[in-house]
Amino acid sequence: MSSPTYNNNNNNSNSNNGSQLANMELLTLDNPVFCCYLFWATVLVAKMLLMSLLTALQRFRYKLLGLVPLAVRRKVFPNEEDLFFKNIEVQFDDPHVERVRRAHRNDMENILPYFIMALIYVCTNPNPLVACNLFRVAAIARIVHTLVYAVYPVPQPSRILAFATMMLITFYMAAVVALRTLRFI
Amino acid sequence: MSSPTYNNNNNNSNSNNGSQLANMELLTLDNPVFCCYLFWATVLVAKMLLMSLLTALQRFRYKLLGLVPLAVRRKVFPNEEDLFFKNIEVQFDDPHVERVRRAHRNDMENILPYFIMALIYVCTNPNPLVACNLFRVAAIARIVHTLVYAVYPVPQPSRILAFATMMLITFYMAAVVALRTLRFI
Amino acid sequence: MSSPTYNNNNNNSNSNNGSQLANMELLTLDNPVFCCYLFWATVLVAKMLLMSLLTALQRFRYKLLGLVPLAVRRKVFPNEEDLFFKNIEVQFDDPHVERVRRAHRNDMENILPYFIMALIYVCTNPNPLVACNLFRVAAIARIVHTLVYAVYPVPQPSRILAFATMMLITFYMAAVVALRTLRFI
Repeated sequence: MSSPTYNNNNNNSNSNNGSQLANMELLTLDNPVFCCYLFWATVLVAKMLLMSLLTALQRFRYKLLGLVPLAVRRKVFPNEEDLFFKNIEVQFDDPHVERVRRAHRNDMENILPYFIMALIYVCTNPNPLVACNLFRVAAIARIVHTLVYAVYPVPQPSRILAFATMMLITFYMAAVVALRTLRFI
Repeated sequence: MSSPTYNNNNNNSNSNNGSQLANMELLTLDNPVFCCYLFWATVLVAKMLLMSLLTALQRFRYKLLGLVPLAVRRKVFPNEEDLFFKNIEVQFDDPHVERVRRAHRNDMENILPYFIMALIYVCTNPNPLVACNLFRVAAIARIVHTLVYAVYPVPQPSRILAFATMMLITFYMAAVVALRTLRFI
Repeated sequence: MSSPTYNNNNNNSNSNNGSQLANMELLTLDNPVFCCYLFWATVLVAKMLLMSLLTALQRFRYKLLGLVPLAVRRKVFPNEEDLFFKNIEVQFDDPHVERVRRAHRNDMENILPYFIMALIYVCTNPNPLVACNLFRVAAIARIVHTLVYAVYPVPQPSRILAFATMMLITFYMAAVVALRTLRFI
């Protein structure tokens, strides 16, 4: 819990001087911005992996809850070798499963490019306060997106707002990085 | 705009001497190869995010253009809560929307592994001239791919050529890295 | 082949002392853990790209083998401009092609977050022996997953075991990183 040496502040002042020499320690645990990125990226990776489990849970849903004898008709597996009961058929169009899969695909479309973009953004030595808050807001927005999309569907504006939050943050990071690196086109 | 110290050249000569000591500054803004990677990766991230907007645009297409009264029948939303007009139905098979979605999926299948591969490639301290041109060609090839696939469909050889360009570049990078790191198997 | 200077050991002892100063050389070729990550990530990137080729191969399958005159009916292309013979139709539901595509999607869902997670994990300076073996096991598990899913379908427990191996490794890495960076929340 000893406070780390905030080299980052030194870097910052250097970059104000127009020098780019002090960037070499950006991708280390000495840099609090990088640590913040690590933490929230970890949260999002865990969230994405849980989507796989949520899909599996939706496939087994009624069976796990043990509520409904009709359960056998709800098992929806895409592969023949996944049919544990021989009297059911391969099925692709269960609405609950497909909803979780669309949410998962949306995650891949947005979170994976964000990981790269945010890592690149850390390399440009951004303002720590701005960067950390962007990471926090983006991660929480995507968790809300998953909740209102896949877990408990909610009327529309909520999902679009959560979706747009991370997208705008990613575009902002892209603009910052593009301006910094434009002469290396 | 003062020219950065091209430590990279020093690194290169060092690696020719069989030493691996000077690699520690590769992932910084001092390294022009890394800056070039940052710029073109940013371009590709922005392109990928625009695919989401293009999908949404295709869903609202006729409505936005305000051209056709039949528009109501063209809105194709996968979720029930997305239906802004209650007299239309959930639909999954609009050819224009599905084409953009296939292009987006193809982007994910190819560009996201490329991001990781190119970042790894930068870590092996490649020849700056080769590396920068690979980044440029790969990014432009994918932009062409999107144009001929999702924006304005063009007869076949064009899309396969654009697709193969980035794939071959990625395989080349993989071969270079695998040869450098083979003894750590 | 001269043995590299294992700075990593120094780093490790430093981190045991509670200091975080020596982390700055983690993402270089001097760090054997990073080299091991590079090698196995390269293998997985190549494997993912081969899935695209496998999909294309499945689409052309019977034609390439030249076995069956019915081949013309098996060509399953999603886009109209891909139809090389005008007497066949656009088709979406070939079971062999869809199986490879599901395997490819599963790769994207699991391997791409793993790339980011493992890179982050390297940044926390893990025990070299543990980290290298995790990378090896995870990569081999996914290769097995592809073989039993897309190449030669095998009865069920095999695929779930291969799938769970990488997922558990990713969760383990996430737990390690989250504990290290928890105070930057």
